[in-house]
Amino acid sequence: MTSLGNSRIAIVGLGLMGGSLAAALSESKTCSRVVGIARRQWSIDQASQRRWIDHGTLDLRRGVNGADIVVLATPVRTIIQLIGRIGPWLNEECLLMDVGSTKREIISAMEGLPPGVEPVGGHPMCGKEVSGLEAAEPDLYEGAPFILTPLERTSPAALVLAQELVRAVGAHPLILDAELHDRLVGAVSHLPYLVAAALVQTAEGVGDERVWRLAASGFRDTSRLASSDVDMMRDILLTNRGVMVDLLRRYQDQLDRWLIALEMEDEEELERMMRAARRGRALSSARKSEDGGER
Amino acid sequence: MTSLGNSRIAIVGLGLMGGSLAAALSESKTCSRVVGIARRQWSIDQASQRRWIDHGTLDLRRGVNGADIVVLATPVRTIIQLIGRIGPWLNEECLLMDVGSTKREIISAMEGLPPGVEPVGGHPMCGKEVSGLEAAEPDLYEGAPFILTPLERTSPAALVLAQELVRAVGAHPLILDAELHDRLVGAVSHLPYLVAAALVQTAEGVGDERVWRLAASGFRDTSRLASSDVDMMRDILLTNRGVMVDLLRRYQDQLDRWLIALEMEDEEELERMMRAARRGRALSSARKSEDGGER
Repeated sequence: MTSLGNSRIAIVGLGLMGGSLAAALSESKTCSRVVGIARRQWSIDQASQRRWIDHGTLDLRRGVNGADIVVLATPVRTIIQLIGRIGPWLNEECLLMDVGSTKREIISAMEGLPPGVEPVGGHPMCGKEVSGLEAAEPDLYEGAPFILTPLERTSPAALVLAQELVRAVGAHPLILDAELHDRLVGAVSHLPYLVAAALVQTAEGVGDERVWRLAASGFRDTSRLASSDVDMMRDILLTNRGVMVDLLRRYQDQLDRWLIALEMEDEEELERMMRAARRGRALSSARKSEDGGER
Repeated sequence: MTSLGNSRIAIVGLGLMGGSLAAALSESKTCSRVVGIARRQWSIDQASQRRWIDHGTLDLRRGVNGADIVVLATPVRTIIQLIGRIGPWLNEECLLMDVGSTKREIISAMEGLPPGVEPVGGHPMCGKEVSGLEAAEPDLYEGAPFILTPLERTSPAALVLAQELVRAVGAHPLILDAELHDRLVGAVSHLPYLVAAALVQTAEGVGDERVWRLAASGFRDTSRLASSDVDMMRDILLTNRGVMVDLLRRYQDQLDRWLIALEMEDEEELERMMRAARRGRALSSARKSEDGGER
């Protein structure tokens, strides 16, 4: 397997994640060559102008030809389609990674790749509510946890190379089982999206325009994820459907407890839940700072 | 009625809101005298040291004696208790305001004040998830909408004085009916708290410590309000109980729509809801920037 320094890398998709990856790798001169594959010439021109890619093409087959590492950086269901097409065009021992936000279905598609390919699922825990190359930046990955979900077939050398790549862009590799990944990330990343979206809908449902004038930083923060990219989020929800249905039900159960305590005017129970939520929130912040992995 | 410049103001409660109000008024030299009334000598010493109050006392009766303006800046249910006690000690024509986050029950208590007192409900739409004088700052109110809910008995002169006070600390006065206030603010401020608290509880319920390591900025923002001060928030929820029960039910209805769309794998409906939520969120941000009132 080629060393990271000698490797030619091809990044499929030059949006926020792919563009930022190209930027980080090019600015740090980590790889010998960075190729960008996009659907629009505009993205290639932009990425070339910023010197984030050495070469760009609209042609997937040509783009991945001869690459030692290929990273798929598109919405999840497109990643799954790409995995189904790309296999025959890849080099022997090519490391195939992705940056999709759900992992179970992607890993399952990766099982079907030709035997010579070395697949490893990936999910960097960073992002923004804005999307596209315009929002990309070389330090997007800096300090973020970057989950890796190897397959049984993945060789130790391929996993080491994937970890090197993750560290090269400033992220912290964290190896996790794909099923567990989808459940944990469902709770702290996909559920918050649904929570935010339903909050916006409820506020809108009050039917008084003045509601927006009263929305202060509390509403803005709680609802921020409702602005997430629709294509990206739709694929995430659909490829993590079972988990999301379960989490939504559990979330509704928690809301029921608040509803009952309010209806019963149960001050003691309200206080107990409030203190528990406050402790839980403090715990999550504490864990983050220990890791030093927060953006 | 005394002019704002000649007025002696007494602020009851030197926490985040009261302390910041004292700070803003003292630094801008808006009033002739700022008196702080607190439960702990420590708060008075701190506020005096920072020159945010001209005089401080632990004695409510003495503190409000001779004041032209009294502002109650404690948790909501304490405000209601204070309104019940303070009446006989207030000057004729004294403007009595508060900064509590719910208004219907406060206004109702204000109705019972002696005829000479001039009550006006107030709610500045700013704050932080940290509380106490330590977190207070002179520009907390800068640019924030500051809702005023006058009573029928409130004289035009008193309402004008209240508006002047609001503008003096950099906030934008917005006159609103108390019932409507509680509904709108319930939707954009109190419901987000419940949404955040239940999210933390659900993530914790997954029962895997690693969940916190994966919590990125999306989770942090969506759950931030779960850290709100328990005493403050308990009083808010209990004095806005009817509205909150209704809003929680509406919120659950919205979540049900997501649940059904996911269970049915209804891609079209999912996309429709996602786009609607995104538009709603954009609308709320746009309204905010028009106002220039965001912090």
